[in-house]
Amino acid sequence: MSATPTSLARLNTLVGEVVDLRHAASLIGWDERVYMPAGGVAVHGEMAATVQRIAHEKFTSPELGRALQDAAREVESLPPDSEWSRLVKVTARDYDRATRVPGEWVEKHAHVASAAHQAWKEARAASSYATFRPHLQSVVQLEQEYARFFEPIAHPYDALIDPYEPGILTSEIQAIFDVLRPRQVELVRAIQELPLEEAPFLTAEYDEQAMLAFSSDVISAFGFDWSRGRQDTSAHPFATPIGSDDVRITTRFVSRHPFEMLFGSMHETGHALYEQGVAPVWTRTLVRGGASLGVHESQSRLWENVIGRSRPFWQHFYPLLQKRFPSQLGGVALDAFHRGINQVKRSLIRVEADEVTYNLHVMLRVEIEIALLTGAISTHDAPAYWNAKMHEYLGVRPDTDANGILQDMHWSIGLFGYFATYTLGNLISVQLWETYKEQDEHWEERIRRGEFGRLREWLREVVHRHGRSYQPRDLVARVTGQPVSTAPYLAYLESKYGKLYGLSQALRPGSGQAASA
Amino acid sequence: MSATPTSLARLNTLVGEVVDLRHAASLIGWDERVYMPAGGVAVHGEMAATVQRIAHEKFTSPELGRALQDAAREVESLPPDSEWSRLVKVTARDYDRATRVPGEWVEKHAHVASAAHQAWKEARAASSYATFRPHLQSVVQLEQEYARFFEPIAHPYDALIDPYEPGILTSEIQAIFDVLRPRQVELVRAIQELPLEEAPFLTAEYDEQAMLAFSSDVISAFGFDWSRGRQDTSAHPFATPIGSDDVRITTRFVSRHPFEMLFGSMHETGHALYEQGVAPVWTRTLVRGGASLGVHESQSRLWENVIGRSRPFWQHFYPLLQKRFPSQLGGVALDAFHRGINQVKRSLIRVEADEVTYNLHVMLRVEIEIALLTGAISTHDAPAYWNAKMHEYLGVRPDTDANGILQDMHWSIGLFGYFATYTLGNLISVQLWETYKEQDEHWEERIRRGEFGRLREWLREVVHRHGRSYQPRDLVARVTGQPVSTAPYLAYLESKYGKLYGLSQALRPGSGQAASA
Repeated sequence: MSATPTSLARLNTLVGEVVDLRHAASLIGWDERVYMPAGGVAVHGEMAATVQRIAHEKFTSPELGRALQDAAREVESLPPDSEWSRLVKVTARDYDRATRVPGEWVEKHAHVASAAHQAWKEARAASSYATFRPHLQSVVQLEQEYARFFEPIAHPYDALIDPYEPGILTSEIQAIFDVLRPRQVELVRAIQELPLEEAPFLTAEYDEQAMLAFSSDVISAFGFDWSRGRQDTSAHPFATPIGSDDVRITTRFVSRHPFEMLFGSMHETGHALYEQGVAPVWTRTLVRGGASLGVHESQSRLWENVIGRSRPFWQHFYPLLQKRFPSQLGGVALDAFHRGINQVKRSLIRVEADEVTYNLHVMLRVEIEIALLTGAISTHDAPAYWNAKMHEYLGVRPDTDANGILQDMHWSIGLFGYFATYTLGNLISVQLWETYKEQDEHWEERIRRGEFGRLREWLREVVHRHGRSYQPRDLVARVTGQPVSTAPYLAYLESKYGKLYGLSQALRPGSGQAASA
Repeated sequence: MSATPTSLARLNTLVGEVVDLRHAASLIGWDERVYMPAGGVAVHGEMAATVQRIAHEKFTSPELGRALQDAAREVESLPPDSEWSRLVKVTARDYDRATRVPGEWVEKHAHVASAAHQAWKEARAASSYATFRPHLQSVVQLEQEYARFFEPIAHPYDALIDPYEPGILTSEIQAIFDVLRPRQVELVRAIQELPLEEAPFLTAEYDEQAMLAFSSDVISAFGFDWSRGRQDTSAHPFATPIGSDDVRITTRFVSRHPFEMLFGSMHETGHALYEQGVAPVWTRTLVRGGASLGVHESQSRLWENVIGRSRPFWQHFYPLLQKRFPSQLGGVALDAFHRGINQVKRSLIRVEADEVTYNLHVMLRVEIEIALLTGAISTHDAPAYWNAKMHEYLGVRPDTDANGILQDMHWSIGLFGYFATYTLGNLISVQLWETYKEQDEHWEERIRRGEFGRLREWLREVVHRHGRSYQPRDLVARVTGQPVSTAPYLAYLESKYGKLYGLSQALRPGSGQAASA
């Protein structure tokens, strides 16, 4: 950025302090999940709470508010696309959201979520929705209160999506779902009519260290910068940035689910490449990070699914994998392997879902959230609603609430409005991919040679470096010339799975309705 | 503690926040040295600085000062030995020290230390004292200023010792040195007249993982609580508590110095047992921690040297070690091994020093610090002073400044007044040990069986659980009935090494002068 105007320098100093504290909170969170000894729970909880509270106090301080007002006046004369203008805009948006929500609500939310999460763990273990229901009720009430802080708004759910997906409206998400739903339901149905191809190599025994070594080779090829990040193991894989120069991802090895480590690593690397690719100019500002969870997810899905489950990718990597695991894979042909890792199954569990079924899992959750928030259904009705939707969309019914409405922890920690970002990520990943392919006629050869540098640098240029400085809708439009749209994703799904499963031409490419946001 | 009086509750809330921030700073520091990727240096530096600055601001705030005053009035009616009284006393002492030192000094110190540390690294690499000298000069000037903040005091150096060893006077340390010096010089001289016994097994090749496994067995036997701590590797071994329930130690393996990992682990475990043993009542207060660096060091030295280099210890562990390393140790008898790990050598380097020479290394540093502080010598004279003292005490002369005055980083990061605590630790370790032996007639059998529970629990009861609630001199007096004294340590040294080296009776037990603090 050019030389800093005075009031902006003041704002940057105050915000920098907040960013430092948030980084500390991220490191504490990472440590909790990766290396903390069991005894450290209480002390970690206390220090995390204090660091977060002070960060919130400092961010919502009148002093910072004044600095922000001054800076806003100062950038009025600059072009709106200038770095300073975008910086002030992002900061103002965050400040507005943070100051609209009273401290008492934040505190009440923390308490409710803490109790709800404990209750959820017990309820899930016992598969007893009844014991979780009152807690879910409290969460819903809090979310209703939260939405009121943002009135007037078109839909109360808009306020809940906004922290995760700035600027996207409930009506847009509903329109997207209305297009995706029938086509994906139909695709699942068509595939499920075919006999399931056995793929015992997917659940064979593999050596953990050998799989980790292979997965490290893959993410190194993707471009994970090990000098500005690291990978460890944890119970649930995640990615956490402590700034752009220290981005940490985790993985896990589950016996008899050996490929989870590999695809999970690709997924988290997609997130990590985004964080590592944010331009240094945004360091220690609120612009550092991803445009939204949806755009973030577009990166993880692009590397995990669009690339990592593609045939050209495995044309390069499969011989290397076979060499590492001759007894498990020596007799499995590339095409059988490729079909195996793209197997479509009507699982009850979202985190086990494949590309074809994933969005359907998301939809039912978002639909329940909206129905609960608007009072269309009560928390008493929720499990029946869940089970009916599962049957309608996927043709399966949960045997227990643990395998149904209790499976995700999101609601128990007060995350409402979050799920749709997974689907937006799917859509955006394919939109970016199609745009990239238009610009690189040799894309397939490159992937077949295991070369990802051009794709990664393109993503860095058009997406990563901008950090949060564009709203997701503007970012997607800048890159693809289109709004967030269903058509490319449906075409991708129907083409890929049509070929994989030898479906009739009618299903590929889809030519039905399309929606966009 | 009994029900909290109102003003104390207020004080505890404010102090708790400071403690949380210090824990966060500790975790950041640990991470920097253990897992941070290289790229993380800047972001870690920023977040550490912000967290430490806010902790300092909060601790020295007028609000906390008022709460402290109120609490002090409230505990006036309580017995001085009550937990509340001790808590307020420790807090008041820390508050007084923190508020006497102006923020500008702290900031200047941070800058000077940062530049000095960089200069020291380069100077040491080039073995060029001249380039470090101006930085040392600045450090000395700052230390002189620091001392003035505490006037009136008997000796300016008193102010420098106090943060590390509360309540100990320069005159007491000098009296201790005056007694130790001639006796330790004489012991070194007597040993050096004897031919050196070759011990090639000390520098043979050992497998790192096998040595780590053995060392883990040993520290588990000592009682390191793995559920409330962990061990990792780092370039330089250290122990860092993030509260009592998350105490982290590190170790390293240096090829051809295989036993450093083992004895270093015992040493850090001594520190860790202290931290893990502080009573829960002191959680989230400033009383949590060790009484002083000297008392802390007494714990590390007790487990590393008094226990870990003793013959009874190896009567139990040597067969187990031999079993792990048959090719290196199968042909080495217990007594030869025991003599090997207690070899006395006139090393130029403090961190390589043995029990007999260690205090002499410390003395020359403390003497130089006092001489620089009082102006008795200038920074120009320091290397010659160092070399002369080395020759006088140990009979060796540094070949280079890198192996002389530039070897320790302490001064480069502004640590002045710290070194004496190593010697105090040696003295206290033996005083505690002699007291313990009086209370457990079966001590030797227990060690020979590898049983350390009774010793550890005794240390917890008489030392660990009290945290910082007693000043070192009071704590040592409570436990041993004596002030900090030279006689037990000299008797221990002369007896142990007299036997090991078959010295004439005249050297054991010593019967000369004694000093105490």
